[in-house]
Amino acid sequence: MRASLVEKNAIPVAITAMASTGHIGHAARMIPHGPGTDRTADFHAHHAPVGALASFTCGRFHADSGFGAELGKAVPGGAVFAGYREAGGPLRLLPFAPMTPDEAARYLGTATSDAPRRPFVAAEIRREIGWCTDRWLAGDLVFEVLTPHDPLPDPATAPIAAQRDAYVPAVLVRLTIANPGPHERTLYLAQQLPDRWLPLTGVHGLGCRRGVGLATDTPEAQAFCALGLDRELEGFGAARVQGLGNVAGFSLRVPPGATRTLTVAIGVYLPQVVTLGRSMRYWYTRLFGSLDDVLAHALARAEVVRARCAARDAELAAAPLHAEQRFLVAHATRGYHASTQLLDDGGRPRWVVHEGEYLMHNTFDLTADMVFHELRFSPWAVANVLDQYAAEYRYDSRVYHPMDPTRLMPGGVAFTHDMGVMNVWSPVGRSSYEVDGLDRVCFSHMSCEELANWVCCAGVYLAATRDAAFLARHRSLLLACQASLANRDHPEPSQRRGWMQCEDERCRGTSHSGGEITTYDSLDHSLGQSRANGYLAMKMWAAHVLLADALGEAGAPARAEAQRIAAAVIASADPVTGIMPALLDGTPSAPIIPVIEALIFPHRAGHDLSDTGPWGELVRALRRHLRAVLVPGVCLYPDGGWKLSASADNSWASKIHLCQYVAEVVLGVASDPRSHRAHADWQRHGAADHGVSDQFHSGVAKGSLSYPRIVTTTLWVG
Amino acid sequence: MRASLVEKNAIPVAITAMASTGHIGHAARMIPHGPGTDRTADFHAHHAPVGALASFTCGRFHADSGFGAELGKAVPGGAVFAGYREAGGPLRLLPFAPMTPDEAARYLGTATSDAPRRPFVAAEIRREIGWCTDRWLAGDLVFEVLTPHDPLPDPATAPIAAQRDAYVPAVLVRLTIANPGPHERTLYLAQQLPDRWLPLTGVHGLGCRRGVGLATDTPEAQAFCALGLDRELEGFGAARVQGLGNVAGFSLRVPPGATRTLTVAIGVYLPQVVTLGRSMRYWYTRLFGSLDDVLAHALARAEVVRARCAARDAELAAAPLHAEQRFLVAHATRGYHASTQLLDDGGRPRWVVHEGEYLMHNTFDLTADMVFHELRFSPWAVANVLDQYAAEYRYDSRVYHPMDPTRLMPGGVAFTHDMGVMNVWSPVGRSSYEVDGLDRVCFSHMSCEELANWVCCAGVYLAATRDAAFLARHRSLLLACQASLANRDHPEPSQRRGWMQCEDERCRGTSHSGGEITTYDSLDHSLGQSRANGYLAMKMWAAHVLLADALGEAGAPARAEAQRIAAAVIASADPVTGIMPALLDGTPSAPIIPVIEALIFPHRAGHDLSDTGPWGELVRALRRHLRAVLVPGVCLYPDGGWKLSASADNSWASKIHLCQYVAEVVLGVASDPRSHRAHADWQRHGAADHGVSDQFHSGVAKGSLSYPRIVTTTLWVG
Repeated sequence: MRASLVEKNAIPVAITAMASTGHIGHAARMIPHGPGTDRTADFHAHHAPVGALASFTCGRFHADSGFGAELGKAVPGGAVFAGYREAGGPLRLLPFAPMTPDEAARYLGTATSDAPRRPFVAAEIRREIGWCTDRWLAGDLVFEVLTPHDPLPDPATAPIAAQRDAYVPAVLVRLTIANPGPHERTLYLAQQLPDRWLPLTGVHGLGCRRGVGLATDTPEAQAFCALGLDRELEGFGAARVQGLGNVAGFSLRVPPGATRTLTVAIGVYLPQVVTLGRSMRYWYTRLFGSLDDVLAHALARAEVVRARCAARDAELAAAPLHAEQRFLVAHATRGYHASTQLLDDGGRPRWVVHEGEYLMHNTFDLTADMVFHELRFSPWAVANVLDQYAAEYRYDSRVYHPMDPTRLMPGGVAFTHDMGVMNVWSPVGRSSYEVDGLDRVCFSHMSCEELANWVCCAGVYLAATRDAAFLARHRSLLLACQASLANRDHPEPSQRRGWMQCEDERCRGTSHSGGEITTYDSLDHSLGQSRANGYLAMKMWAAHVLLADALGEAGAPARAEAQRIAAAVIASADPVTGIMPALLDGTPSAPIIPVIEALIFPHRAGHDLSDTGPWGELVRALRRHLRAVLVPGVCLYPDGGWKLSASADNSWASKIHLCQYVAEVVLGVASDPRSHRAHADWQRHGAADHGVSDQFHSGVAKGSLSYPRIVTTTLWVG
Repeated sequence: MRASLVEKNAIPVAITAMASTGHIGHAARMIPHGPGTDRTADFHAHHAPVGALASFTCGRFHADSGFGAELGKAVPGGAVFAGYREAGGPLRLLPFAPMTPDEAARYLGTATSDAPRRPFVAAEIRREIGWCTDRWLAGDLVFEVLTPHDPLPDPATAPIAAQRDAYVPAVLVRLTIANPGPHERTLYLAQQLPDRWLPLTGVHGLGCRRGVGLATDTPEAQAFCALGLDRELEGFGAARVQGLGNVAGFSLRVPPGATRTLTVAIGVYLPQVVTLGRSMRYWYTRLFGSLDDVLAHALARAEVVRARCAARDAELAAAPLHAEQRFLVAHATRGYHASTQLLDDGGRPRWVVHEGEYLMHNTFDLTADMVFHELRFSPWAVANVLDQYAAEYRYDSRVYHPMDPTRLMPGGVAFTHDMGVMNVWSPVGRSSYEVDGLDRVCFSHMSCEELANWVCCAGVYLAATRDAAFLARHRSLLLACQASLANRDHPEPSQRRGWMQCEDERCRGTSHSGGEITTYDSLDHSLGQSRANGYLAMKMWAAHVLLADALGEAGAPARAEAQRIAAAVIASADPVTGIMPALLDGTPSAPIIPVIEALIFPHRAGHDLSDTGPWGELVRALRRHLRAVLVPGVCLYPDGGWKLSASADNSWASKIHLCQYVAEVVLGVASDPRSHRAHADWQRHGAADHGVSDQFHSGVAKGSLSYPRIVTTTLWVG
């Protein structure tokens, strides 16, 4: 990232309530939210272990909160109680519980709390966000959630000890209470779930039937389980665990003048087969014997984790970025981890990134955007997913030209949109999403785009890793991809025009009128279509460029196709304005930003994309297009936010951030810093209920909630 | 039941829209609801297999509907689509889907249905209710849910074939569409769940990851899976199964002039360990190898099941009862089955009845009321639960007198309130509900009542079965119960007064002021308490009477205690009015009906409870009390409904029905038929959202929703 992106509006150093406890030095490197800043602290963020499809989600005031697995959203009816009470006084809690009565009312007929709560209000709550630390300061408390992320060991080969550290399905939370006196205080840290708890035997904590549990390493903390936190506080006598209770956690005495910290691991352990269609367990069941084992390991590593988190927080703080970009990086990384799932398929690891709230498996148009994050932190995962697609979720099909749909022509290999949904694995060669016979509407096939995605991912993976074994085992597939890509322009070379002309036979349908779509599936009919789509043409161009790299001599046809596409894209630009239409075949269409997107692949593979390099004319044309559309009313919202299509109020944050990177680093078009503020507020305000999200209409999340793809922001930090 | 209960207001024979299909003869024996009657058809009912803790719940218009397991309520977001469409016309469906947009809107950003629905409205929907058949008639459709119930084979000894029939975890639904022509119609029968589906391989149907599935034996029915039913209807081409779909089911062509019936089995198969605390699977996993096996077996038995249901419907129709009593019997039986769970504990069967929405295991104060139903249909289940309590959920404790709480005195054996909650088994000797140290409030111990319950259940079980092995293995426990019951009046015989005076030490607490409660736990402090409670005294009386039966010579002390209690109860009556206060020790209290309740145990054990028999004075006193309180403003609501306590607007339907039986059959006090109408309307209107429920305030269900205990109504049919 260039110096132009360095933060210009310096943010004042956070003045925290806990200066005396030594947090202030660290806090200075965090991104402050709440009072004293102009950023709200009132929004959900994910905090997730890696590979457990789980998240400890909190931050939105008075909303469902806490640890859940396999949900794709915050746990319904969940609540986190973190705070303290001074003898006789009200409960001072962070507002991480829904504003609903305790469940005890179901038994009592009425809510009868004798323990008034006084949750902290927004004006009292300071929030500091780092890459791995999310921290709240209110009154005399500090609450932290720690989610380290380091390069992930390859589960197929790494030592078990390293894997236990990386894939422990638990997160650490820390609650510190200072007591200036003169009265004793009691610290409370508890989780409410729509489930019931039992004390664990191997650790100091409690677990519930659906596998979630929590534990602490502080022996003097008192474990409790109660039907609503208020019931606990009414002093339910010597038996601190009521089996009927839905709230489980710990209390700890804080004497006058003392400060106490409670560290709690909260995690999940699902031992059974968790999938349908294919029979798999979580990989962590190979690494841990039980929930107790998980929680004990997480607690034993608490100090190491704190240090790792601090180091990663510092790395992000040092990145030459606008503060809002740093926020977006941190927020996106947490959301990505919440969607990750590492499965055990008969001893072989399967890497799955779920599609946020939709929970589709390894949705390929997400994979192709997240590949840059994964090449930094888990390159083995890229190969793992590409291998899965190559083995199980590819198909061979014919194509047809919409002008002559009764004639099926040679096509070739293609890949599915996804591998299944909600832990249900789709049959071989079929996704959960795609439906045959649709005409360029949501749920149609994405054959050509997923084909380009396999090649682009393989290309950047090979460029990054030089993995000769991968190349050897997929060389024939790469050759097949080369042929299929060309055929999807047109099987007859003389008829090729430099974009996708021919539709996959799966789309044809009984009316012979169907057509493919791109990942921009919920844009309108003309922009979401694949046929003649400039965005897709550029992805095909990138695929051909990388195929040529991988195939050497045999890649000559790909080189020619890349040239053909580049020429077509250049020719599409309006001679006066330089603006390229979304559709290259003359169909009327509004301009879109993502025509520049696919430059990312050759760029990350090391290609010269300078104005004077081999693709100079294309690069110059795309820059001219971008500058022309990046104006208010075309592809900019009034607040500076980017609008991917001039004709649709429907933007994907992940794609914006990817295109911003391409614009800045490849085309030298720096983003207006106002855009970072706008995009950060989309997440904080527009997606406050959902955690990091992708699809926004005028800054409000309307779909693709709790989404992993925004991790395209990792590009910003190298 | 006496002739006085025979239905007086004859209900007109149902005139159905399907007279031509032969339904009318059968329908005449059902209880009609909807147009042409003065009863609403708009309320939920359970339809459940036995022992699967599952229910196909439907009937409430525009509410969550369909098959769910382990929920204690209707499945959130579930919907049943049953109906038809004529080419080009709107969908005519029963209104069994929530009024929310199809989930497709989450992907599309907006609901875009091209297939208008026109659900049937209340004025078009006739509902006919039998003991085993729930039937809806609307337009040209008939929809039936069939839930047979026959005596249940003992899982410990019965042949596997008989068990497969009795415990198949599936229900049968039948949809019949008549097509008078001239256009083709398509029948639709489908289930929406918050889960995803795959085609099954062993049967013609689909299953989803959390174990629910459906299948049909009609080969020409077309299976489909779609994201919202409307998507299916838009004609998603040749691929009829979209993996992303949340709606799975079948369509079937109905040519002009034809009538077609589709039979579908819908069931569940959870193969894994489903409990915490103790490790158990469902018993049905011993009987069936897979979901396919379950559904195939259910379908193969469809004709047998229809015949069994018709026979049982006829039995209820022939019972000399008011129509509303017949409704209550049918409604209650369905609700009871929904809470039943048969588990496999290492090869030994465990019978569990869950406590409705609360999902507590074998809550003992329910067991003691449901025992009469179980003695008819599953006497082995009574012994199974009593054995579980004897082995694991008993404890020995001391007692104390509240006037001298520091002095602990000999007490003896007692039993817990329950065995766990939500499939979490409590530790030995502990319930999930009870909390130590509380003073006569909800969640305190019920030691004395559960002790009386164990004895009363064992007593009626022995009287009904003459099970010598049961008596032999529990004789020493019965002796211990005799001693403990007496000690809970007072350990020193000279201090005994004929009611519970001494509290269990578990209640004492640090303040030495705690006290026990009865199953009327959410009545006010004075009426919910066990101490001096007339209702409990009568249960202790019944226990002593039955102990004396069981113990022969050794039961002499019990005989004496029974006499003492009877004398105290008789003496408590006001000489002028005959009214007995709820509390026998002079504490001011309002009268209650349930002081008569425990007469049921000696009555069912064959004791002479005539006015001239050995308990004649007690019986006469109780009759005088009942007649005095059973007046408007005391223990009657204005509509004739019963009010268990004069001082609290909080009634339990199950207890009312039990007391009505005692009043009629033992005391000869017939119920006003208006009361049956009132109580039926409590269920139909006051619990419309929940299925059969127990706890009502002024006719509106406020707790104990979806509850099994109302099966006390089985007493009415013998």
